[in-house]
Amino acid sequence: MYRLVYWPQLPGRGEFVRLILEDVGAEYVDVARLPRDEGGGVPAILALRDGERPGQFGFAPPYLHDGDLLIAQMPNICQYLARRHGLVPDDAALQAIANQHLLTLADVLAETHDTHHPISVASHYEDQVDAAMEKSRWFVSERLPRWMRYFEEQLTRNGGQFFVGVQTSYVDLAAFQILAGLEYAFPRGFAAAVAGAPQLQALRVRVGERDGIAAYLTSPRRLPFNQHGIFRQYPELDLA
Amino acid sequence: MYRLVYWPQLPGRGEFVRLILEDVGAEYVDVARLPRDEGGGVPAILALRDGERPGQFGFAPPYLHDGDLLIAQMPNICQYLARRHGLVPDDAALQAIANQHLLTLADVLAETHDTHHPISVASHYEDQVDAAMEKSRWFVSERLPRWMRYFEEQLTRNGGQFFVGVQTSYVDLAAFQILAGLEYAFPRGFAAAVAGAPQLQALRVRVGERDGIAAYLTSPRRLPFNQHGIFRQYPELDLA
Repeated sequence: MYRLVYWPQLPGRGEFVRLILEDVGAEYVDVARLPRDEGGGVPAILALRDGERPGQFGFAPPYLHDGDLLIAQMPNICQYLARRHGLVPDDAALQAIANQHLLTLADVLAETHDTHHPISVASHYEDQVDAAMEKSRWFVSERLPRWMRYFEEQLTRNGGQFFVGVQTSYVDLAAFQILAGLEYAFPRGFAAAVAGAPQLQALRVRVGERDGIAAYLTSPRRLPFNQHGIFRQYPELDLA
Repeated sequence: MYRLVYWPQLPGRGEFVRLILEDVGAEYVDVARLPRDEGGGVPAILALRDGERPGQFGFAPPYLHDGDLLIAQMPNICQYLARRHGLVPDDAALQAIANQHLLTLADVLAETHDTHHPISVASHYEDQVDAAMEKSRWFVSERLPRWMRYFEEQLTRNGGQFFVGVQTSYVDLAAFQILAGLEYAFPRGFAAAVAGAPQLQALRVRVGERDGIAAYLTSPRRLPFNQHGIFRQYPELDLA
């Protein structure tokens, strides 16, 4: 039984972990989504983030408890779970390629976050909107098309169906979530950028149809994107 | 014989890989630092970054060739090398903790980069200096002290000497480089933030005295920090 600890009100980085747990059918508790009187809510996160002394555990959520082991950092948790549950080949070279892809997808995630918070997470979007507009113009016109071309090319190099090896891996699941998030945040920019990436579009459909994922997506456990998360829909930041 | 490919004019993300290679005494060629007529220089990087089709290999350097295997993403290359050369314990739980720490150090690196380039890497510092000033004020006053407290606390949790297990790992080497870079970039802010982190300071001294590292630091192979890199010294961005 795993225990995942992540902000209860947004999909964010926790969602990449959830997709793996749901796909492999692992038993887990989504701790911070429990009621507060059952140990859930934001206090469950703060107890780990701040501990008895600030910084005692991970710097930021998500956190995963596996028995006595407590680990943080989304790409790290995903790698750990994927190796345990066969969502990545049992080969050091292919595992390194998978990790490379996941870190690159995590870079897209961080860059997307910074389109609406280029200055500081400590202040509101409205207080950094000028810088956000400037950063987003560059993001939707240059970076987003370049990311899409890059990932499409990586799929091509590996035969077109999977990012790693000859079966679905946690990288494909993460790509699914990144594509969904980018479509939510930048509907116009994403449509333009993904038009030339048919393999990426097909991969997204296939992942969404996997048994565990399809059941999850229609369950109440799936959190919708919203304006509290990493992927936010500010029309003024999208392609004109 | 490894082949490392990274921008020849700055330490940047390549330096974390070099420190591992030098510490373990691995044979490697620092490809882009060879003369152009021997296959070096920036063209060696562009050939991998852009390939025959853009995005054919990794999204950005550093790259590592190990025979036929080509991998990218600094924390991924470091993890790969550390496991092969005994710079991380041979235990899945400790390896996950090491990877967590390295990804958090990489977050510090990315955040430091963004203090001088908050809007876009495609334009000069001088064209985004207002946003840079605003972001840096928050970084040196809030983030830098918080990062230092966090890493000091992580050392404390593990006994004070090493980040992982009971011997030097690639995490300690990476922390050494982050501390050196922060000191170069923000001499006043760093001095204030690290004052309360004696174990971190002691770790930095110990890493610098390791045989392979000490020999490397005084060799011409060690690139100094400079205004082209991730860690840049803009006095106006430092603590007042």
